[in-house]
Amino acid sequence: MKISSLNEKEIISAIRDSFVSSKKSLIQGIGDDAAVVRIGKRNFIYTKDLLIQDVHFKISFHPPHLLARKSLNINLSDVAAMGGVPSYALLGLGLPKKIDSQWVEDFINGLKSAAQEEGVNLIGGDISRSKKITLSVTVIGEGDSIITRSGGAPGDNLCVSGTLGDAKEGLLLLQRKHRMGEGREIDFILKRFLDPFPQVSLGRELSRRNMPSSMVDLSDGISVDLGHICEESGCGALIYKNKLPISWALRSLQKKCFDFALHGGEDYQLLFSIPKEKMGHLSELRKIYPISTIGELISEKKIYVIDPQGRKKELKSKGYRHF
Amino acid sequence: MKISSLNEKEIISAIRDSFVSSKKSLIQGIGDDAAVVRIGKRNFIYTKDLLIQDVHFKISFHPPHLLARKSLNINLSDVAAMGGVPSYALLGLGLPKKIDSQWVEDFINGLKSAAQEEGVNLIGGDISRSKKITLSVTVIGEGDSIITRSGGAPGDNLCVSGTLGDAKEGLLLLQRKHRMGEGREIDFILKRFLDPFPQVSLGRELSRRNMPSSMVDLSDGISVDLGHICEESGCGALIYKNKLPISWALRSLQKKCFDFALHGGEDYQLLFSIPKEKMGHLSELRKIYPISTIGELISEKKIYVIDPQGRKKELKSKGYRHF
Repeated sequence: MKISSLNEKEIISAIRDSFVSSKKSLIQGIGDDAAVVRIGKRNFIYTKDLLIQDVHFKISFHPPHLLARKSLNINLSDVAAMGGVPSYALLGLGLPKKIDSQWVEDFINGLKSAAQEEGVNLIGGDISRSKKITLSVTVIGEGDSIITRSGGAPGDNLCVSGTLGDAKEGLLLLQRKHRMGEGREIDFILKRFLDPFPQVSLGRELSRRNMPSSMVDLSDGISVDLGHICEESGCGALIYKNKLPISWALRSLQKKCFDFALHGGEDYQLLFSIPKEKMGHLSELRKIYPISTIGELISEKKIYVIDPQGRKKELKSKGYRHF
Repeated sequence: MKISSLNEKEIISAIRDSFVSSKKSLIQGIGDDAAVVRIGKRNFIYTKDLLIQDVHFKISFHPPHLLARKSLNINLSDVAAMGGVPSYALLGLGLPKKIDSQWVEDFINGLKSAAQEEGVNLIGGDISRSKKITLSVTVIGEGDSIITRSGGAPGDNLCVSGTLGDAKEGLLLLQRKHRMGEGREIDFILKRFLDPFPQVSLGRELSRRNMPSSMVDLSDGISVDLGHICEESGCGALIYKNKLPISWALRSLQKKCFDFALHGGEDYQLLFSIPKEKMGHLSELRKIYPISTIGELISEKKIYVIDPQGRKKELKSKGYRHF
């Protein structure tokens, strides 16, 4: 193994190459939203995310109870993206010496509220001193049929839940000193960034009906995360710009709303491909969940955006990268 | 819930009170070396530790391959303390922008070596930018019979594996600029701090024979960790000072070796209680593993050290505390 640069992708791929598993029980190792281990007839799903102060969040933007909720919910989103249901969580909590005890209390209460909403139990973890607040949540879930990133095929439709780009606008508003309580549009957008809702119930319904051929959650933006599906499925994709779901609030606040929809991270919606013959089953779910068909998978290994005039432009990933 | 101070113990107990589980499958929640969930007839063990640069380690002391090994092995030690066998690991890795790619390569190789030694597979995780190197390892294990901290009873003998206090001396030597290669004693002691060996095999043998009534791993020092057994088991303990296992190296380097044995952290040995009638079974294991009987549990809820002259002195916890 040789790492020539500190590109996140290269580090992950070096780790992936170093830890090729021989265990038959390992259904999905490094390289998807979560790992999956089959035990008996059950599939266990494991995921973990690191959130570090001033890298992933600022305490001046994020009230502790919402930060706690987000730290859990982004992991639940990973479990949802595998088509699973979360059951347990572990919390690694690094706290600065001088942190306010009210902050810690609010954090715990926030975590409790999010855990209760999704029926998740916090069962352990570790607490440590740390210069920057450090949150490392591990979630354990279960799933009957597992949906990976690799099952997509040319011709499959491409669908997405909810609306896109709101979270990026939310971060921008916070950076521009906007806060909750300044009106309906701003509140809607800020909430999408500060308190994202994990699509656990939709993920479960999709997996129960065995509909998606591939699925990811949108943490880094569609241009990055669709890239994961395409890479793992060995295909490309077309996206129809005018099919991208944009919220009324984003439309009214942000001229570049389509750019935000394509490249904005942290929306935590589900992006999935569905074989065309299964699209009929979607109408039932659409009564409950907002789902948009935004394009399709193609055999050419590139991602294109088609504008309303029918012009085709290659989409390069501009999503959030840590390195 | 009300947190009045930021004492680690109080935060853990506030979290523990907030997350009382109703799930029948949860055998052991917050408050032991690891959490245990029963699924069918199998017990799954979950543990996670946070290691943060300049809080838990210094890069000038810890070569990356040994740091990686330690980050995994201290979690394996937690699984061992439940009487389980580790199978899978997840890695949360926070890296500074300017870190050397050789450092990352050595880290991955170290992790691989430790994982292979214990048959553990790395199956997922998260990579992030971070000002300080941040390591959050989660380990998943299995165990037939689970050994908690709470089963000890007055009259049970108190046993410990290996030798005690070496790791603390190792840290001290590093702080005094000693490095590997300065002689047998120093090398032995430094290795005990830099590359601790998890007692997985002993933990499994003890649990297979259903011998310990309670068990912990020694991460914070005997005065703290024995306190956990006593608190959870509702008893106290006597320790005979001259029975404490001290290595030849520590004895020759450190006058206060008994203090180090009682209060030094990071030894990652197993401390366990055994009902007297089961002590006979220990002789077989003693042929393979160094095990010392250092005292016994008592009904009075205090911990005493008895010196060679028979004088009794209460032991107050002086182990490492993060807050």
